[in-house]
Amino acid sequence: MKIAVFGTGEVGRRLASKLVELGHAVTLGSRTADNAAASEWARETGGAHGTFADAAADAELIVNATAGTASVAALTAAGAANLSGKVIIDVSNGLEFTSGGPKLVIPEAGSVAEELQRAFPEARVVKTLNTMNNKTMVDPSRVPGPHNVFLSGDDATAKADVAGLLRSFGWGSEQIIDLGDLSTARSTEPLVMLWINLSRTFGTENINLAVRHD
Amino acid sequence: MKIAVFGTGEVGRRLASKLVELGHAVTLGSRTADNAAASEWARETGGAHGTFADAAADAELIVNATAGTASVAALTAAGAANLSGKVIIDVSNGLEFTSGGPKLVIPEAGSVAEELQRAFPEARVVKTLNTMNNKTMVDPSRVPGPHNVFLSGDDATAKADVAGLLRSFGWGSEQIIDLGDLSTARSTEPLVMLWINLSRTFGTENINLAVRHD
Repeated sequence: MKIAVFGTGEVGRRLASKLVELGHAVTLGSRTADNAAASEWARETGGAHGTFADAAADAELIVNATAGTASVAALTAAGAANLSGKVIIDVSNGLEFTSGGPKLVIPEAGSVAEELQRAFPEARVVKTLNTMNNKTMVDPSRVPGPHNVFLSGDDATAKADVAGLLRSFGWGSEQIIDLGDLSTARSTEPLVMLWINLSRTFGTENINLAVRHD
Repeated sequence: MKIAVFGTGEVGRRLASKLVELGHAVTLGSRTADNAAASEWARETGGAHGTFADAAADAELIVNATAGTASVAALTAAGAANLSGKVIIDVSNGLEFTSGGPKLVIPEAGSVAEELQRAFPEARVVKTLNTMNNKTMVDPSRVPGPHNVFLSGDDATAKADVAGLLRSFGWGSEQIIDLGDLSTARSTEPLVMLWINLSRTFGTENINLAVRHD
């Protein structure tokens, strides 16, 4: 599949590399076409790179791995016409770094995912994977025993496509929890804060949450 | 121990009843002394009830189970002198009910717990138990297998006291995760939103999170 990954940070590059490894045609998108991290990534992996608009134009699916506070700007730069009808996997997190520690930024829409969906109503936004370290995203076996990944989105077909992609990353069907519509992203976007604290408490990045119930 | 429980909703009454059962002298505090739910609770359990100030005056420990959006007002009504030096177990959650579903309210301080600590610097605030159903709070065995409760607070002695109280509720030491200082409450206060969605997804209130790591 032709996939655009927006964001050249560790999360974007990790996901893009895994998608190349799985045989997809991946373009890493950034604000400018001459992004150094993106061109190095492309050299190393055989993937492509370009602007957000370059990456989105041909893509069948888009992964948003930009900072949550910059995601509307990134998607705006990509161009609404290049997003229309496409699945956007939103793995972003909106954090503000204050002197008292990181603080979650909650957009007026309730979550970054809802903010993106509102700004680009013809795209099909699915929130997932934002609740863990990027290495765990593409290799869930790094965390021992049962643990979970969440899905939120308004489009059932889009969520099924994304669940398929998660399975190709190694997630078992029983690990994937569909929480419901996109407003449920309000409950998973804050988990990045918990992840940061747990990682510090236990001294490992191989850490995730498991849902337990009767 | 003499314990004041602030808040006459389901959470406050559940915690107060468990504390009576454990042999503590419990006063349920509310805005007015003639609160109907509180007087019914007192009749049923043999506990006492009164205003926030009545309850706090003699208490050695205070449990805040008021709504997070009303907690500063409740503690203000109790009187700073009645809180000074005392451990305040903050189990509150700040939610705003919008047409698009519940939305987390994040005070300027970063969390309700930090807002309370800032308003009453001589109290010793510990955040805990706010991440689950009130029945699970006092009977963790309702959720099968391993699952966790979080502690956040700036005072190590206060956290040790609260951990002791949790153990008396049935929590195993290995289930209690001390996340660090009170700012870590920023990462657990949002979990109420996830709990609501998980409870709806799986159709049970006996549901909680387990931390998994290598």
